[in-house]
Amino acid sequence: MQNVISILVENQPGVLVRVAGLFARRGFNIDSLTVGVTHDPKYSRITVTVTGDEDFIEQVKNQISKLVEVESVKILPPNGKVARSMALLKVRTNENRNEILKLSDVFRASVVDIKDTTITFEITGDDNKIEAFQDILKPYGLLETIRTGVVALERGENTIYNNENEERETT
Amino acid sequence: MQNVISILVENQPGVLVRVAGLFARRGFNIDSLTVGVTHDPKYSRITVTVTGDEDFIEQVKNQISKLVEVESVKILPPNGKVARSMALLKVRTNENRNEILKLSDVFRASVVDIKDTTITFEITGDDNKIEAFQDILKPYGLLETIRTGVVALERGENTIYNNENEERETT
Repeated sequence: MQNVISILVENQPGVLVRVAGLFARRGFNIDSLTVGVTHDPKYSRITVTVTGDEDFIEQVKNQISKLVEVESVKILPPNGKVARSMALLKVRTNENRNEILKLSDVFRASVVDIKDTTITFEITGDDNKIEAFQDILKPYGLLETIRTGVVALERGENTIYNNENEERETT
Repeated sequence: MQNVISILVENQPGVLVRVAGLFARRGFNIDSLTVGVTHDPKYSRITVTVTGDEDFIEQVKNQISKLVEVESVKILPPNGKVARSMALLKVRTNENRNEILKLSDVFRASVVDIKDTTITFEITGDDNKIEAFQDILKPYGLLETIRTGVVALERGENTIYNNENEERETT
């Protein structure tokens, strides 16, 4: 099962290395990882997606919470979260440009660059949607792609700052 | 100056730790970092944004390219790239819900969750746009935010796979 772990950390050099190192030392392969600032510049937030059963994830959570720079760590509830990622996809075009643009409408992808022979799209959504769009573009000649890792928030009132409620799903 | 470094790496545990460790050991503070899969499952792509002058960035690039798991590394041309990130922002609402929804239209933000007392928005764009939206929402009560790091691609035909052209900007 894929789990989303959200980690609130002090914004200091080296925090990311310690968090990523904890996964690597134990041979846990991370599916994706994102780190970015929050609205409070003192803190960054790391989102890790990792595959494993409940026991494994609890163990990972306990290890992470022991790091001194970690303020808070939450396993986001599978049915009580919004999880999204973004991708940029560059595809080769020729006289088929309109056909490709029509397909991109179906996926609500936006054009972020267009040249004589290439179009670059931006798409957001869950991993399945992004992969479906990628599969549709492949036959036209996908030149390069880049994806952010997953970012996720709990639905409703629960946040990473009210950790005591972490077992309660907002329904 | 903020620089965007794009790194194509073999998809193996520990690669991220070595790349992030290289920055941390030298005391370089990373502004953002994203790692995600590409359309070829053998490779992941890491995007790092880091502030520094040209000499510093060249030195970082040389160090990164020495790591064995690194297939390719490029400093993306400042005026020849598309750089975007995504944020999720959860704001408290009451009778002002419509007012907030109207503001979100201006920024072309999408609603990804709506409850009695909260709305969660998704927004994509450059950092300035995301910060402007965040500033607009702050007075209403921003409950939590999460941002992906920057992802970026060169405009036009140039890709991370044709490294020999890296100095040439596509105009």
